[in-house]
Amino acid sequence: MYRIGFGIDFHQLVEGRDLVIGGVTIPHHKGALGHSDADVLLHAICDALLGALALGDIGMHFPNTDPAFKDIDSKILLVKCFELIREKGYRVVNVDSSLCLEAPKIKKYSGQMREVIASCLDLTIDDVSVKATTTETMGFVGREEGLVAYANVLLAK
Amino acid sequence: MYRIGFGIDFHQLVEGRDLVIGGVTIPHHKGALGHSDADVLLHAICDALLGALALGDIGMHFPNTDPAFKDIDSKILLVKCFELIREKGYRVVNVDSSLCLEAPKIKKYSGQMREVIASCLDLTIDDVSVKATTTETMGFVGREEGLVAYANVLLAK
Amino acid sequence: MYRIGFGIDFHQLVEGRDLVIGGVTIPHHKGALGHSDADVLLHAICDALLGALALGDIGMHFPNTDPAFKDIDSKILLVKCFELIREKGYRVVNVDSSLCLEAPKIKKYSGQMREVIASCLDLTIDDVSVKATTTETMGFVGREEGLVAYANVLLAK
Ligand SMILES: [Zn+2]
Ligand SMILES: [Zn+2]
Ligand SMILES: [Zn+2]
Repeated sequence: MYRIGFGIDFHQLVEGRDLVIGGVTIPHHKGALGHSDADVLLHAICDALLGALALGDIGMHFPNTDPAFKDIDSKILLVKCFELIREKGYRVVNVDSSLCLEAPKIKKYSGQMREVIASCLDLTIDDVSVKATTTETMGFVGREEGLVAYANVLLAK
Repeated sequence: MYRIGFGIDFHQLVEGRDLVIGGVTIPHHKGALGHSDADVLLHAICDALLGALALGDIGMHFPNTDPAFKDIDSKILLVKCFELIREKGYRVVNVDSSLCLEAPKIKKYSGQMREVIASCLDLTIDDVSVKATTTETMGFVGREEGLVAYANVLLAK
Repeated sequence: MYRIGFGIDFHQLVEGRDLVIGGVTIPHHKGALGHSDADVLLHAICDALLGALALGDIGMHFPNTDPAFKDIDSKILLVKCFELIREKGYRVVNVDSSLCLEAPKIKKYSGQMREVIASCLDLTIDDVSVKATTTETMGFVGREEGLVAYANVLLAK
């Protein structure tokens, strides 16, 4: 018994914040703005996990008005989402994700990101994909005002 | 035998129109512009259903130049798409969707939306997910010029 | 054993380039800018295939700094990606894709695109969907500065 899940997340890029993507802190002159650590990739995966089983969304589970989630490490959120799907008897088959950002290049960090995600979801890195693309300088991503992550998950019972 | 489907839809937000999302009319000072009732979420799900079986897209089945579809309730379109996939021997396993809009908050309406969609597709609400996110004030969604819906469906024969 | 894959690709639209989408050259006053033939649809499908098996992304396999891929026909890239997934013992169950572009209308070309994609992936056109939508004149797609393609694939072993 399979289920499909989809997630999308957006964050602004601003000076004076760390850039945390996929649980990895990446050297860059800008970081992602948000209530938590603003990890766009882990948030998209959280939403995909929740969505696959119709368990709500990340904003319902971890409201950005709740001080408990201020600057929180999003790996904690991802593990909580995974626990919710495990409680329903599901496991993750695979995760595929795409980052849209103009800079920096994340290629050399994608292996680490996959390890982080795999360890949170009880997978091997062969079951976790992190891809990246620019938007060819177009739109708010192209102007480096923000970044977007998409995630798709397949679950099985 | 499984199949995957994906849909995306866009509508402008303008004064003087109702805001119908997921079959629910939501109080707001702007509504979605379109030939039909401009239900961005149901349109994305229609496209995901059609796409899963390569049956064309919503624009081919329900052209926005056809007076028959002027101001039509998009639940009718969704049911028609579901009939097309049933005729091919498929059922819907689950639907996951994401709305991108800056305002209003749709959290309190998402339960109703899930009921509408479930009833159109012969599902329970546990098989229908409606998530929502802002774009963190970026882009045309962030400027409240429009809204976007994404839908993923898994079908089985 | 199933796997899900997702891809997204962006290209600018500029004067003086051919518009190649889904392997079909479409008459238009603008074409897609890129190192290869800039086929936004085939690139999204490449990324979805690679992503489903966590094999990296199109930028890793076919760097846009490598002269070998200058103006290359993206069908060659798609076939290479398909070979990579076949080597892992997988086949494609179905492909669903969506093009976001303001102009031109691609409806009359979508059948040809599906044939191209099906022939690259050893499928029939019933297993390949190419949908299209405008963004209702919003954003960089609405201003005809560029186009976007999304692809979802389901693989089976
Ligand atoms: Zn986030
Ligand atoms: Zn629509
Ligand atoms: Zn490309």
